[in-house]
Amino acid sequence: MLIVQKYGGTSVGNLERIDEVAKRVIKTKEQGNDVVVVVSAMSGETNKLIEYAKYFTDNPPKREMDLLLSSGERVTSSLLAIALTSKGHKATALTGRQAGIYTDNIHTGARIDKIDANKIKSHLKKGEIVVVAGFQGITNDGEVSTLGRGGSDLSAVAIAGALRADLCEIYTDVDGVYTTDPRIEPKARKLDMISYDEMLELASLGAKVLQNRSVELAKKLDVNLVTRSSFNDNEGTLITKEENIMEQPLVSGIALDKNQARVTLRGVKDEPGIAAKIFNRLAKENINVDMIIQNVGLDGVTNLGFTVPENELDGAKKVMYELNASELLEFDPKIVKVSVVGVGMQSHSGVASKAFDTLAKENINIQMISTSEIKVSMVIDEKYGELAVRALHEAYHLDRAE
Amino acid sequence: MLIVQKYGGTSVGNLERIDEVAKRVIKTKEQGNDVVVVVSAMSGETNKLIEYAKYFTDNPPKREMDLLLSSGERVTSSLLAIALTSKGHKATALTGRQAGIYTDNIHTGARIDKIDANKIKSHLKKGEIVVVAGFQGITNDGEVSTLGRGGSDLSAVAIAGALRADLCEIYTDVDGVYTTDPRIEPKARKLDMISYDEMLELASLGAKVLQNRSVELAKKLDVNLVTRSSFNDNEGTLITKEENIMEQPLVSGIALDKNQARVTLRGVKDEPGIAAKIFNRLAKENINVDMIIQNVGLDGVTNLGFTVPENELDGAKKVMYELNASELLEFDPKIVKVSVVGVGMQSHSGVASKAFDTLAKENINIQMISTSEIKVSMVIDEKYGELAVRALHEAYHLDRAE
Repeated sequence: MLIVQKYGGTSVGNLERIDEVAKRVIKTKEQGNDVVVVVSAMSGETNKLIEYAKYFTDNPPKREMDLLLSSGERVTSSLLAIALTSKGHKATALTGRQAGIYTDNIHTGARIDKIDANKIKSHLKKGEIVVVAGFQGITNDGEVSTLGRGGSDLSAVAIAGALRADLCEIYTDVDGVYTTDPRIEPKARKLDMISYDEMLELASLGAKVLQNRSVELAKKLDVNLVTRSSFNDNEGTLITKEENIMEQPLVSGIALDKNQARVTLRGVKDEPGIAAKIFNRLAKENINVDMIIQNVGLDGVTNLGFTVPENELDGAKKVMYELNASELLEFDPKIVKVSVVGVGMQSHSGVASKAFDTLAKENINIQMISTSEIKVSMVIDEKYGELAVRALHEAYHLDRAE
Repeated sequence: MLIVQKYGGTSVGNLERIDEVAKRVIKTKEQGNDVVVVVSAMSGETNKLIEYAKYFTDNPPKREMDLLLSSGERVTSSLLAIALTSKGHKATALTGRQAGIYTDNIHTGARIDKIDANKIKSHLKKGEIVVVAGFQGITNDGEVSTLGRGGSDLSAVAIAGALRADLCEIYTDVDGVYTTDPRIEPKARKLDMISYDEMLELASLGAKVLQNRSVELAKKLDVNLVTRSSFNDNEGTLITKEENIMEQPLVSGIALDKNQARVTLRGVKDEPGIAAKIFNRLAKENINVDMIIQNVGLDGVTNLGFTVPENELDGAKKVMYELNASELLEFDPKIVKVSVVGVGMQSHSGVASKAFDTLAKENINIQMISTSEIKVSMVIDEKYGELAVRALHEAYHLDRAE
């Protein structure tokens, strides 16, 4: 098999850890696989460099930031290649440039345009382990670019796609994807498999194993992703296309997103296009609106509610006061969004009503509801967040495999 | 003027220092000059990375070492460009590759083959300050290479040569070149000017301001070098060609080299080519022989003496025992070499005899003598080293300008 392995910052957090990673890579290689390794910077390193730059200015030139930040992955990639060589294996470290990772020219948040995998392939052909500095690429002008948060995962997925690798393993410090956050519900169970779409919902809802950009890219490139821990030998979670998953569970997981705030406009002015006006202004200010509900009360008054990330609430307030589009404005940061996710919902009715029932039994008032084909999200008072997660986890029997 | 400034590790040793460097660069720029800055890694950074690699092996692959070590200068170059930008100046950081520094493929000790200065020139034309990561280049295959110890000085000199810069300023933590080590002779005086050849002699004799490779390259490319401190505003020392120095002093400086050991062969076998055999073997073992004397005593017995660096004495011993070329072998690490350097010697007699007289007056026995056109070197017992330096400094009136 051809396997791409990506090790995150904590996995290569110090020299002992890099040594452990080298052993794991060699084990994979000695099982008869070709191995390409993508590494992040040692944990803390990228933040240290950002702090360095902030010593001088809050708005450093982005081109220079990329040059600065790309150094962290160069260090880990060469150290890992040195570790592998010292253990008697042929290994070559490649920078993003040398690995043929071409991006657009949006510095500090570049998108991968294409991968020229010839250099990686030629080193693999010679039986070498190839170690690629993640997070970085080059623009068409030959400038160094970086891919933003989660960039090393993107590098790994893109390389796996270009090489048509059998597997892309993403190593972190957690075992895989759980039915819910084990810190909230100790009975949470690690999933063996999950579909791209479910993973996308879970990730966007606060499960921090993988960023959505990587899952989306894996889906697009048809890359089989495995997320697992570099600190033990447990099997991880395979993220793959729905067709590959034989037994579709009704519900795969419960997610809790605490980083939400609610905005409510009571008595919205009776003016054509007023909603469009509101959301256009918010979009212009780069405020991400998530759930939206609108209803007309018995008194004929229109109420409009929506949620935004908590750290964008101040921006949303400003816009709302400027627009002055309703009789009364309410802002509530003390809410959370709890979501039930599962591809099985598509073919089974009753999943949503079970969720509402479960919360009702716990006397939890549901403030907003939003549904998609594979998820039901509910906004509730933040003090009930953990309780809701545990109750839903129990209601769908997520503590045991089906 | 077009000025290349190079700042060493202590000059960019922390963020405050980088800020100070930025101010100095801006001052130079605002005086109407075009400025190219070459930077080393923050002091300690390169050694830290070497230690990292040594955690895994004592013989890391050199290609990967270059990738590893080159990251230090990337950090300082981008930070300095960020600092300059934050102070309202246009600045661009360039890696060795982007600066067009092409080298041979001897990793960790590459030699500069050529400089393609077009990218630097195009940024200068736009009025930008160009900051180049020193110490690094690329091979013709596009691999990252580093230039070995003193590599950033070499980068600066080579760039100054390629740009036909008016001046190449090398900033360190010392004020310039002194008539002798001020820690030995407090009356030591900073020289305003010195010729390349004198500097070469002084550097090879232990004055650590500049490495010989840089001075040799400056001489070859006709680059006017200035060595000065980044910690004050004192004028430094100009190192230039002899013709540019109006008043040639008889003697420019006294150097003391403590890192020497003496090997003596008494009663060398009367065998044709025996000396050649000895020095060929030493060369093969990469042992650097400095001074050599041979004489035949009144008894017809041939004695041969030479000096080697102290840390190569063990290797020399081994070779001598293997060759078994004399009746008696003596090894003495407790010697030093004291040297009188000055281009004025070429046209003035009596410089050497004054040196011998001076040491004789102090009852210091001279064990070996070697002379060139611009220097007289004497091997003496190490316990007299400092005394000899002070006596010679006094004898040639080096405490006062002529």
